[in-house]
Formats: sequence, C-alpha cells, structure tokens
Amino acid sequence: MDLQAYLEQKKKRVDEYLEQVVPSENTYPQVLHKAIRYSLFAGGKRIRPILAIAAFEAVGGGSDVILPFASALELIHTYSLVHDDLPAMDNDDFRRGKPTNHKVFGEAMAVLSGDALLTLAFSLMTEERILKEIEPQLVLQASREICFGAGNFGMIGGQVVDILSEGTHVDFGTLEYIHTHKTGALIRAALRVGGVIGKANKENLLGLTRYGECVGLAFQIADDLLDIEGTKEALGKNTKGDEKKGKITYPAFLGREPARQKAQELMDMGIKNLDSLGESAKPLRELASFIVHRKH
Amino acid sequence: MDLQAYLEQKKKRVDEYLEQVVPSENTYPQVLHKAIRYSLFAGGKRIRPILAIAAFEAVGGGSDVILPFASALELIHTYSLVHDDLPAMDNDDFRRGKPTNHKVFGEAMAVLSGDALLTLAFSLMTEERILKEIEPQLVLQASREICFGAGNFGMIGGQVVDILSEGTHVDFGTLEYIHTHKTGALIRAALRVGGVIGKANKENLLGLTRYGECVGLAFQIADDLLDIEGTKEALGKNTKGDEKKGKITYPAFLGREPARQKAQELMDMGIKNLDSLGESAKPLRELASFIVHRKH
Repeated sequence: MDLQAYLEQKKKRVDEYLEQVVPSENTYPQVLHKAIRYSLFAGGKRIRPILAIAAFEAVGGGSDVILPFASALELIHTYSLVHDDLPAMDNDDFRRGKPTNHKVFGEAMAVLSGDALLTLAFSLMTEERILKEIEPQLVLQASREICFGAGNFGMIGGQVVDILSEGTHVDFGTLEYIHTHKTGALIRAALRVGGVIGKANKENLLGLTRYGECVGLAFQIADDLLDIEGTKEALGKNTKGDEKKGKITYPAFLGREPARQKAQELMDMGIKNLDSLGESAKPLRELASFIVHRKH
Repeated sequence: MDLQAYLEQKKKRVDEYLEQVVPSENTYPQVLHKAIRYSLFAGGKRIRPILAIAAFEAVGGGSDVILPFASALELIHTYSLVHDDLPAMDNDDFRRGKPTNHKVFGEAMAVLSGDALLTLAFSLMTEERILKEIEPQLVLQASREICFGAGNFGMIGGQVVDILSEGTHVDFGTLEYIHTHKTGALIRAALRVGGVIGKANKENLLGLTRYGECVGLAFQIADDLLDIEGTKEALGKNTKGDEKKGKITYPAFLGREPARQKAQELMDMGIKNLDSLGESAKPLRELASFIVHRKH
C-alpha cells in the first residue's frame, strides 16, 4: 500500500471511531457539542493517532484496542489548538481554512469546548471493555504516557514557555525546550502509547521513543518553514504569524537552509532508530519523510 | 470526633498529598507551577475530596488508596474555578479573598494552568501503585465517574448552559439542569468514587449516589443564598454577583425562604439515603448539615 492510501485508511478508522464516541450536534447542550465537533472535524490530518497506530502495528499489534488511545491523542491535540488560538494566547483567526473556534462560538465556548475535549480524551481511556484485551497496568501506563506528554512537563509546559518568550530574546536552549515540548511531547507520547499497547519489548519501545523525539522536532521545524514559505491557501491559516508575533523559530535562528537540513537529519536519525523493527515499521519510515516534506 | 476536627484532619491529609504530587514553584516553567499552586492552595475547604474520603470510609475503606481520586476531584474543581473566573466567562476579580488567577498571572497563564490542573488530575489516577491495592476495573470505573462528572454531560455541560442563560429568561427546568450539573455532578462523582474504591455493594453505592445528588443541589442553593446574604469579608469574593450578572438562582426563582426550605429538605432526603450504612456514615450526615448551614 502506498503512503497516501495508508494515511487515508488509518484516518478513516480514527474518524469513524471519533464519530461514534463524540456526542452528536443534537445532544444537549447543543452549542457545546457543535463547538467540539466544529474543531474536531475540521479536516485534521490525524497525524498523532496515525503515528500511534503505526507504532502499535510495527510491534505486532493488530486489534482496535489502540483506537481509544490514538483518538485521545487527537482530542488532546484539538483542545490545544482551540485554546492556543484564543485572543489571550496566540490570537489566531483562522485554522485549517476556517474561522477559529472562538471566532464562531465566542471565547467562553472555546475555553469550555477545549476543556470538554480534554476530559473526553480521558473518558475514552477508561472504557471497561479495554480491559478485555489488554492488561490493566498497560492501560494505566498508556494513559500516564499521554498525561505526561500533554501536561505541565509536556505540551502545556512548552506552550507556557512559548507564550512567555514572545518578543523576547531567547537562547537556543529555550527554543529547543519549546519545540520538544509544545509539539514534540505529544508526538513522542503517540509513539510510546502505540508501543505500550502493542506490548513492545524494551529495545523496540526505546527505538519508537527516539523516533518520536526526532520526528516530533522535525515536524515542528517543517511547520515553521511552512509558516514562512507556505501560502494561506495551502495551509488554511494565516502565514508568517511567527514573524509577526516575534516568535523565534529554527529557521529564524539558524536560517532556512540549515533548518531544512536539520529537519532532514532528524528524519534520518528517527528512521535509524527503527532498525530493530524491520519490515513492520515501513509505514513509520514513510511517515517520517511525509512529515518533513509535506506542503501543508 | 466533632465535625470541625474531622474536616481539619481530612483536609490536612488531602493537602499533604497534593503538596507531594504537585510540582514546587521552583520547577520549570516556574510561572506555570506558581499559577497552579496559587489557585490550588488558596484556602479551599476540600469539600469534594472530603466527601469522597467520607464515602470511602462509610463503606469500610481504610487506606490511602482513595487519595489520588479524592485529590483529582480537587484539582478539577480548582481548574473549573480558574477557567470560570476568566473575563470571557464569569469575569470575577476575587476568589477566596485573593485576586483571581488571571488577575495575577494573566489570561493566557490562567487558561494554561487550568488545563494543567485538569491533566494532572488524570495523572494521579494512572499511578501504577494504585493497582497494588485495588482491582483495575475499579480504578477505571472511578476515573470514568470523575470524567463523567467533570465533562460535557456534567460540570462543563452545566457551565455551558449557565453561560448561555445569563440575562435571558430561563425556566425552572433549565435552572435545575444548571445546578445539578455545574456543581452537583462533581459532588455526585465524589460520593460515587468513594463508594467504588471502597467496594460498596449496590445498595450502598446507590444510597451514596442519591445522597450526593441531594447534597450537591443543596450545596448550590446554599451558595446562592450566601451570594445574596453573605459579606465579602466572610466569603472572600464579591457578593451579589449573580444578581448583577442577571443569573437566575433558586432564591431568585422561589424566594429566599422557600429556597432555604428546599435546601433543608434536600439535606434531610440526602441523609435518609444513608440509612443502610449505619454508624459509619455519621461524618457524611454531619457534612450534609455543614454544607447547608455554612456561613462561608
């Protein structure tokens, strides 16, 4: 299967699962569920869930038991976008080609729908039927990985430092902290969760973790390059936002070409860490390249 | 032991546990952890954790295994206050006698520290060592109860309808929805979590649930009465906020005396539901009275 077909197939599985577990727009209170669905089904590529599924399958996993965890990652990613777009945060008006959540539903509803998305993520991981397929300590470990990746020592930590650093002179260490936490931590968690639920051995779990760290950082560098070089049409959001907000990025710090080279090196290093996994990790290898070379 | 001593003893246990699991103010990024601790240790009464512990002990539980769940309820309660106080929401400047989180740390940090508190709540419930003391399906059930009480069908749902109803004419059904969800759902969850982790039988779990529903609603009516009759000094926040914001409350709908009577009836009904529990539920009976008759 080529990568495009693979991505579409996995995205479909995640979307079908989300469709089933997220209340319909007619569910009371309707505005809340409309706001949740507006952002959740806004055309996201489902990269994090797909990475989790690919890691799960790379270590021999084959059932649907990965879906609650993979989908939780997407709910968390979506909540983080809704909150990050708020006027008090990044103040963005467009996301994936559509007005941002607070532009449509107001700030209060954006805060609350983000809160609800985060809570729903944890709901999914507490379903009793999960225990029919997987040992309880692995369920808790996977949830713990997601909490760690999403929380104060992960994504939120990165977002805090990003906000505090705006318009100030930041050193390279701070820039690295922001990138590895704001985007990297949840991507790393996606790989680890796939490994944990797939019962990876130590060596493979470590390989997946390193791959996740490399690809997470490469993903952010690619994002920053797209912010400079992409068009609003391709990206569905305003470009050059980083520059306008005085955000320091890899391309701004190193220059565009060295930044592109860094992303390429990280991609190669990430792929190298999958050596012990052999043929089953083919989709992960292709995903790394897709993440670095994507145009949107 | 009299109730005052009981409350102090349980509060101390919860505070010590929270002190231990919540990162110190010196932990990077410091501002985030300062903001988290500012609101978490602002002098909250720890009613929800105490209700969970009291329910746990009422059904025969006796270890510290309840603490992660009890404390998660307080982290969730605190995050909800931080977000509710935001300008886009209730726009409150004071809480527990101190400026609200966003007044001190700014709106962005208030959003993020709320998000971090919620994530931390779920972290606590995924600790591996919990499994040494309690069956995995009970751990997941307790987490699920908390998700349900805190989420789109619980506390967040109530807050959404409350926000949407401001300044509009609401019927009694809507008022009841707001109260039973915004405050009631998490209190109900506290009782159920105590019962679940304490391995309550069906009858007792149902009794605790009904008690939680009654006391949760009585709690909110008492709160609304305090908002009208209390002083800023006793409450640590501006009073008559509901009236100013055009919020409809039980006292506004029924009149003060009938509202007071309703709270008393709910208290009695709540206590009645503990009959099957006998002497071990004495603290819960006294807590019901405390909740209805408190002056702050």
